[in-house]
Amino acid sequence: MASKDPPLIIRGKDEMREWSRSARAEGKTIGLVPTMGFLHGGHLSLIHESKKHADLTVVSIYVNPGQFSPNEDLSTYPSDFDGDIQKLNSVSGGVDVVFHPQNLYDYGGRRSSGGEEEEGKVVSCVEINGGMGHETWVRAERLDNGLCGNSRPVFFRGVATIVAKLFNIVEPDVAVFGKKDYQQWRIIKRMVRDLDFGINVIGADLIRDEDGLAKSSRNVHLSPQERERALSISKSLSNAKFAAENGQLNCKELRDSVIQAIQEAGGKVDYAEIVEQESLEALKEISSSSPAVFCVAAIFGNVRLLDNMEINV
Amino acid sequence: MASKDPPLIIRGKDEMREWSRSARAEGKTIGLVPTMGFLHGGHLSLIHESKKHADLTVVSIYVNPGQFSPNEDLSTYPSDFDGDIQKLNSVSGGVDVVFHPQNLYDYGGRRSSGGEEEEGKVVSCVEINGGMGHETWVRAERLDNGLCGNSRPVFFRGVATIVAKLFNIVEPDVAVFGKKDYQQWRIIKRMVRDLDFGINVIGADLIRDEDGLAKSSRNVHLSPQERERALSISKSLSNAKFAAENGQLNCKELRDSVIQAIQEAGGKVDYAEIVEQESLEALKEISSSSPAVFCVAAIFGNVRLLDNMEINV
Repeated sequence: MASKDPPLIIRGKDEMREWSRSARAEGKTIGLVPTMGFLHGGHLSLIHESKKHADLTVVSIYVNPGQFSPNEDLSTYPSDFDGDIQKLNSVSGGVDVVFHPQNLYDYGGRRSSGGEEEEGKVVSCVEINGGMGHETWVRAERLDNGLCGNSRPVFFRGVATIVAKLFNIVEPDVAVFGKKDYQQWRIIKRMVRDLDFGINVIGADLIRDEDGLAKSSRNVHLSPQERERALSISKSLSNAKFAAENGQLNCKELRDSVIQAIQEAGGKVDYAEIVEQESLEALKEISSSSPAVFCVAAIFGNVRLLDNMEINV
Repeated sequence: MASKDPPLIIRGKDEMREWSRSARAEGKTIGLVPTMGFLHGGHLSLIHESKKHADLTVVSIYVNPGQFSPNEDLSTYPSDFDGDIQKLNSVSGGVDVVFHPQNLYDYGGRRSSGGEEEEGKVVSCVEINGGMGHETWVRAERLDNGLCGNSRPVFFRGVATIVAKLFNIVEPDVAVFGKKDYQQWRIIKRMVRDLDFGINVIGADLIRDEDGLAKSSRNVHLSPQERERALSISKSLSNAKFAAENGQLNCKELRDSVIQAIQEAGGKVDYAEIVEQESLEALKEISSSSPAVFCVAAIFGNVRLLDNMEINV
């Protein structure tokens, strides 16, 4: 049930910025929900969060080549723009704008000399496939390390950079990120603080399907059997959280229990780390003075899945 | 002769942004001239340039620790805030705001764990002296290399980052940079393009004293004898430009002539490079298809001086 018009679809950077500036000139506040499309209930919860904090909501849909390295799944990342628009039409109160650019790294200039993968240097799909000389990157140099940063070396540099670009194009007052991507959320919050963006970053809780699997666009690639086995992630995390809240505070033992459960279900654990919530530094012991979050990345089939639970004792 | 009120002095980030947003809401455009103070005629020319392109002009005065490494001259960088205000009062038509923050890296939070220089890692004075966990840096990864990037490894990372911060605090329509710092100007232009800042970056011509020395806040540290000898930089550059415009297009020979002249005058050449104006890639031969700029950094006494001349044949 749509209670207002379908969203305006904007593809150009200048048109997007003009829309935002007109809205601001009329005294409206703007919320931004950055997505890579193939929307699910998790994204819709971010949109509801934005609507709580801003007069108008912009949803961006853009699969960012800058956060994929050449051996990752850029080419198979799922997309369904028409389906996305249908879902957005059903949002109560509506979404005001869908920003759906074609290539945010095309500056209309000549191509830089470095069009190919450089020997020994980790590069993103932007640098391989012609970013027209794009070479400016934003990095949170400590938070980048560890967790997903270990196995995806260009990922967070790419995320921080595209989010900075979107912030400068959309010029929002509020931006909403899911705590499902916990490290990403912390990096964006730090970037906004460190670079003095005049934007309020809101973290929205992770949303699960009824069986407990954390919602993700990549879940569509799981076979029914793989999905069943992947439930070991949320189940073991939930058990660890319960154990910690009942006095089992040793991180090695908590981690071992999760790793074992996932491996027994046939999954490959990329990492299972208990870290401090803000610094993301590894903890040996959970305590009331250092709020913890238990972050997991594991692979079932060919699908890399993320999950996490905050543990406050 | 001041034709309007003295500038408003603003020290807080929030107050600065509020001023800008009110001005924009009234339909005014804002020009920003970032400086490190100790103003001279070169800075005043940037201000005049800003006033041509924007309704209101903000001059920021902030010596940025993020662009100095611990072995550089942060502690002796000259400053004279009262003198600066006097000079700004004399600007025809006036300056609207002087943004003079105390510490742009103090976020009011706890200090990060890394408060000391890390072994083997090049860090800036921010990381040494407590940036309260500041860790987000902006880099133009190609343009950073070469020229000043060789001898000042944290410099351009620090410059791009502080300029991004100032852009987000002041939210200007126009920003003016001197082409005296040629590599810096190119990096900022590239950053604005690559990160989609909605800001028009204007390069203002290098300004010289009557004897030909490029104006710089650091010139105050030169003894009269050193200053006399430092004129070898502008004289030899000028000769090289004249030679190139009259058919001497071989870069090695042009560079050798400048290096020799500076060394004979007792200067130490940090670099003397002829590069393409936009990519800053070294040229072997000057041609009409690749506009060149001849960039020099040389040390007289303890003072590192920059100069450059564009050569269009």
